[in-house]
Amino acid sequence: MTTPGGALVPTRGDPSNMSDPLDFRRLEAVVVDMDGVLWRGNTPLPGLGVFFGFLRERGIPFVLATNNASKAPEVYVARLAERDVTVARNEILTSALATADYLRGLHPAGTPVYVVGGPGLRVALADAGFTVVENPDRPVEVVVAGIDFELTYEKLARAATYIQRGAGFVGTNPDPTYPSEEGNLPGAGTILAAIRTCTGVEPTVIGKPGRAMFDVAVARTGRPRERTAMVGDRLDTDVLGARRAGLATILVTTGVDDAAAIVAKGIRPDAVFDGLPALTEAWRTALDEAG
Amino acid sequence: MTTPGGALVPTRGDPSNMSDPLDFRRLEAVVVDMDGVLWRGNTPLPGLGVFFGFLRERGIPFVLATNNASKAPEVYVARLAERDVTVARNEILTSALATADYLRGLHPAGTPVYVVGGPGLRVALADAGFTVVENPDRPVEVVVAGIDFELTYEKLARAATYIQRGAGFVGTNPDPTYPSEEGNLPGAGTILAAIRTCTGVEPTVIGKPGRAMFDVAVARTGRPRERTAMVGDRLDTDVLGARRAGLATILVTTGVDDAAAIVAKGIRPDAVFDGLPALTEAWRTALDEAG
Repeated sequence: MTTPGGALVPTRGDPSNMSDPLDFRRLEAVVVDMDGVLWRGNTPLPGLGVFFGFLRERGIPFVLATNNASKAPEVYVARLAERDVTVARNEILTSALATADYLRGLHPAGTPVYVVGGPGLRVALADAGFTVVENPDRPVEVVVAGIDFELTYEKLARAATYIQRGAGFVGTNPDPTYPSEEGNLPGAGTILAAIRTCTGVEPTVIGKPGRAMFDVAVARTGRPRERTAMVGDRLDTDVLGARRAGLATILVTTGVDDAAAIVAKGIRPDAVFDGLPALTEAWRTALDEAG
Repeated sequence: MTTPGGALVPTRGDPSNMSDPLDFRRLEAVVVDMDGVLWRGNTPLPGLGVFFGFLRERGIPFVLATNNASKAPEVYVARLAERDVTVARNEILTSALATADYLRGLHPAGTPVYVVGGPGLRVALADAGFTVVENPDRPVEVVVAGIDFELTYEKLARAATYIQRGAGFVGTNPDPTYPSEEGNLPGAGTILAAIRTCTGVEPTVIGKPGRAMFDVAVARTGRPRERTAMVGDRLDTDVLGARRAGLATILVTTGVDDAAAIVAKGIRPDAVFDGLPALTEAWRTALDEAG
């Protein structure tokens, strides 16, 4: 169901899942997923430069959001710079950075945290003022867990022991696996499942479709959530999570989910496009018609 | 509801959960849980010696069954010898040994297996004729996972990769935790939850309340399952698992579950005793009355 402009018409169905058709003139900000929207693997997708040119030209604030907690934001800044797109460090939001922002809203500077995770998560928490505890004799207020290529039994046991003694339990993102050339390797969700099984405690999970990731992204744009849209390629993380968090939702079908998946999964975005060029064109046209 | 002889009357309730009252004269063999039945922690429970004396005197074959996969059977033989009770190595069934027996019924000698687990499990599988693979370039037919104090990310990743390529997935026992002085530490169930989350594949779990543990125990006694009773202290593992496997069920209230738990959990054993002395006395009386 592609229109000449490249817009895919969302399938009509259960009215409880339907929103009013997306009115681009009401949008003031956008949260953008990266993999499957800006690039696929290492290959940039068509319309990348034009999309960011449009956002800058119209002064639309954006946050680029990824559940990947293992890379520093500078990695994404550099990858976009290679395509002549300039973004600031604080326009990148990894689930590690969102976790640090979330915890900063709940705990004072210096709060001791225990990390099951990689260097990216440790740095994000230390930069946010938390004390990342290594010494096993130190008390801990919060256990923060994500993907950890250096995971050991000892780390799982320490995390479980702190949580049983009353520490909070926060996970960076729910993704069970991490895609690699060898197959799906254990992701943050696998490590969270282990700690949850051992403790019986459910973690607060920050990354998409978790609520906190969207709340932090919206706070960074400084605009109201109901005037912010999420652009993503996954219905069950980007679209469902953004809808629950009160954002408008736009699916681009250049990644995981296509128009048929909307019917199969029963999750209907407010708008669907076959890629960034069609999205940019529709948005530009709506603003131009409004004068 | 303790009778003068120490027998606790099972509470009547849902008829689907009820069996005929246990007729000891029909019993030919017994499977006995150890912790909470024979001892609690390191302290032997009253009636231990008399119970085994009775079983030997009447020629009733028994298997002592534990979900603990980390200790060799010789450890239990030695512990009983300290109390002047002589048992043979093959009268001890750990979940590691049951796993090896189960797999031997499905796979020929030499089948390559990958183990996420401790030395006890590796030895049990090697003794049963399996090739425990260390070299990552070797193909693997079955991944066997249990508690592993040397767990690493790399081991989880290898297990997940083999399973995604089609290897079977077997777990020694479902227990999520391992009690220690520091609290509940990660048990086999925690490690199984991680691999299940990463692969989407459910393991075949051998230990109680899994079916295979009871099947292997019954095979070792050489008597029919309907003429075999399970004696245990836990309703949701010993009693529920044994009932599903077709054994008669006896709860002793010297461990985890008491008579009130029968009502709370809605799992009704065929007989309940407040310890080994009352059980032995009831059994002996039934046989003596039968002449």
